[in-house]
Amino acid sequence: MNAPNDLRSLTTPRLDPRPVPPAMVEALKARFGERCSTARAVREQHGRDESPFDVPPPDAVVYALTTEDVAFTVALAQQHGVPVIPFGVGSSLEGHLLAVQGGVSIDLSRMNAVLRVNAEDLTATVEAGVTRKQLNEAIRHEGLFFPIDPGADATLGGMAATRASGTNAVRYATMRENVLGLAVVTASGEVVRTGSRARKSSAGYDLTRLFVGSEGTLGVMTEITLRLYPLPEAISAAVCHFPDIDAAVRATIQIIQMGVPIARCELLDAHAIRAVNAHDKLGLHESPMLLMEFHGSPAGVKEQAETVQAITADCGAGGFQWATTPEERTRLWAARHHAYFSALQTRPGCRAVTTDTCVPISRLAECINDTVAEVDASGIPYFIVGHVGDGNFHVGYLINPAAPHERDTAERLNRQLVERALAMEGTCSGEHGIGLHKMGFLQDEAGIGGVALMRAIKHALDPRNIMNPGKIFEF
Amino acid sequence: MNAPNDLRSLTTPRLDPRPVPPAMVEALKARFGERCSTARAVREQHGRDESPFDVPPPDAVVYALTTEDVAFTVALAQQHGVPVIPFGVGSSLEGHLLAVQGGVSIDLSRMNAVLRVNAEDLTATVEAGVTRKQLNEAIRHEGLFFPIDPGADATLGGMAATRASGTNAVRYATMRENVLGLAVVTASGEVVRTGSRARKSSAGYDLTRLFVGSEGTLGVMTEITLRLYPLPEAISAAVCHFPDIDAAVRATIQIIQMGVPIARCELLDAHAIRAVNAHDKLGLHESPMLLMEFHGSPAGVKEQAETVQAITADCGAGGFQWATTPEERTRLWAARHHAYFSALQTRPGCRAVTTDTCVPISRLAECINDTVAEVDASGIPYFIVGHVGDGNFHVGYLINPAAPHERDTAERLNRQLVERALAMEGTCSGEHGIGLHKMGFLQDEAGIGGVALMRAIKHALDPRNIMNPGKIFEF
Repeated sequence: MNAPNDLRSLTTPRLDPRPVPPAMVEALKARFGERCSTARAVREQHGRDESPFDVPPPDAVVYALTTEDVAFTVALAQQHGVPVIPFGVGSSLEGHLLAVQGGVSIDLSRMNAVLRVNAEDLTATVEAGVTRKQLNEAIRHEGLFFPIDPGADATLGGMAATRASGTNAVRYATMRENVLGLAVVTASGEVVRTGSRARKSSAGYDLTRLFVGSEGTLGVMTEITLRLYPLPEAISAAVCHFPDIDAAVRATIQIIQMGVPIARCELLDAHAIRAVNAHDKLGLHESPMLLMEFHGSPAGVKEQAETVQAITADCGAGGFQWATTPEERTRLWAARHHAYFSALQTRPGCRAVTTDTCVPISRLAECINDTVAEVDASGIPYFIVGHVGDGNFHVGYLINPAAPHERDTAERLNRQLVERALAMEGTCSGEHGIGLHKMGFLQDEAGIGGVALMRAIKHALDPRNIMNPGKIFEF
Repeated sequence: MNAPNDLRSLTTPRLDPRPVPPAMVEALKARFGERCSTARAVREQHGRDESPFDVPPPDAVVYALTTEDVAFTVALAQQHGVPVIPFGVGSSLEGHLLAVQGGVSIDLSRMNAVLRVNAEDLTATVEAGVTRKQLNEAIRHEGLFFPIDPGADATLGGMAATRASGTNAVRYATMRENVLGLAVVTASGEVVRTGSRARKSSAGYDLTRLFVGSEGTLGVMTEITLRLYPLPEAISAAVCHFPDIDAAVRATIQIIQMGVPIARCELLDAHAIRAVNAHDKLGLHESPMLLMEFHGSPAGVKEQAETVQAITADCGAGGFQWATTPEERTRLWAARHHAYFSALQTRPGCRAVTTDTCVPISRLAECINDTVAEVDASGIPYFIVGHVGDGNFHVGYLINPAAPHERDTAERLNRQLVERALAMEGTCSGEHGIGLHKMGFLQDEAGIGGVALMRAIKHALDPRNIMNPGKIFEF
């Protein structure tokens, strides 16, 4: 392996290539025919995600249709000692999909069958390429929904691999809590099933939780059994705006501490609102805003909303507006989900470097305030959105990719933010994962001892380092 | 290693002894003085739990006061290649604490400081020997509580080690979801800190979840950071009885499927009620009963209770009684918690063999009905209690330990029950863990491939197999 690059850097690290040998390409083409591609455009599409890293493409792309397709490919890769990188829709944010040593990208997007819905048990089993919206379409008529919503219409495999969460996590938790079991192809090409359909288990090591969040470095998930929830009898959404971010965060802290079972509690700063107003033709007040949603019985929702309205008013909120029809709610949440792309459009040609710290909620206001002061001083355009009920927020630095000093500044700001979050007993990544970008930060957070345990597990389960190598930590 | 015993057996397996050598005893006594004991009574007390297994005592017992004490002891054990078994209050149920190869029992019960309570963040950090009742006493004045309640006043270290849950899990989940971070002494004697105080994280492998439920086989937890919850504004409990178990379970299924956020939903069969009536001098109707608790705002609790009353009435329930004062509630829940000991007293000299299956809730009625038919036919006295909202129930077979055929019958019944639960996509252990008793069942459940992954992790993290050896799976 080459000397490591700075692992907190936005420069794609260059590791020793381990190209797919011609014999392996032949074997893949013999099995998969047109479902194995070495075309440049296809490879480049599979060597990128939404991160600002340069693309190193894989040498070949396989479109898997079955778990057996995946097992075949992994077993072959094991035999030849070449990397395997699982691919869903490419919406990851930390360089997870980049083929830093070449190898085969296994595209799971065609494994998109909802295999079983057990409405009585509130569970579903899906192939890894099913997206969250597709699942929700498939279960809506049963009166059920799957709440985890990272914004992008990611695959459930990708969401499990990065331990995703998003806007509903404050009430419904994250992929960690909502994956019951998995089918995984391990580094040897064997298929292992973890978990069961029981709601809880104390049967041995928690392999399910080990694979969830392992970013493809321990195996390829091909089937996922998930918890579902009854669609709430009543839903309502509300927005209100605050004189400053501090007031919005203080209101959030009180809502959480009072135990209000709020379903969503999102912060948008004035920059984010300005962007979505322009993109979605909305007329939202351009000051820090909370966008909230309440789920429950009609009386329960009313009670939650009244409590929250009183708290936010105490914190100086104004312009409390309700969105009770599905259309109004959809419009607001669509705007929230468009924040990232709307912000990109405010600076043509820019790329976003997105932070992902999460801190104990008592430190959230201080963390955001100090961060805003730093980024304001830097002159880099930015926006902030936050799953503030969880203490998680994202700063998007909108940099000109052709201007090295802007990259450097974004890196410096991100580093300062992570240092601040760790000093506050938080984490460098609330929901995006480590990928390439946060490998150095992981060591700062987990310590040498913690990373050594992770490496020991990786070496035990993938001794030849073929599963998405070069991610999370150095092998 | 000796040839394996039948790993589903109630006979304590006999493995090659690895006694603590005199030099190590001397080193322990030099550091710990009277906090290191080799007295027979002390050793025997530390070689048992609540399981029906025979006691193999450890060779020495160390009473740790600090993480450093634990690290010193483990490092010494590593050097001498002898087993280390963490001990809390001895309330485990599957033989977790038995020193099947000798070694040192590390008693953590004196590490019982509540280190920090962060009320604003709803977190606490405790030493591993703090019990759940002690923690709840310490945080009550802050308006907070820790909901996980396995019945016994277990240590939080023991609860984390077995991935415990209990009566509140239907709403507040299990130790898996409520442990945020750990300090762990690994097999090398190193101290590693996992997790953070953030509510969620995607930073690397989920080491916290790997240690939770690992039953002391990967390390000794010495500090635990937990999620807390605001004490509900209103609490009420209710009981109602049903013509048969089937009706009680059908009511439970409907309650869960409707998304009622019930906090506790416990089944007691007629045998269990008869036992607690005798023990606690209660006059409960001796037919299958649900004991429920509702948490929320006063209006929310009222609404939940009305919904549940309608559902249970539809299912044929009668005798709906409310316990709204704290005293009444405490009396009912004390009775529930005494069910195990009350049942033991119905057959003097008996021991209980306790099952722990958990199945998808749609299969629960069928699972219990078939189980009742089998155990009724066997003639063995028994009782059933169940965290039925989770699909988890316990049959306690009350056997005469001096009558081998009763042991055999209990083993057969337990085996049949586990086979049934696995065929229903459930688990052999909802909350007690594997220990000695369920090692064979774990293989049935996780498959050879799943157990091979667990063993690979164990070999990587504890290559000399000093951490609670002989538990969960064969090394």
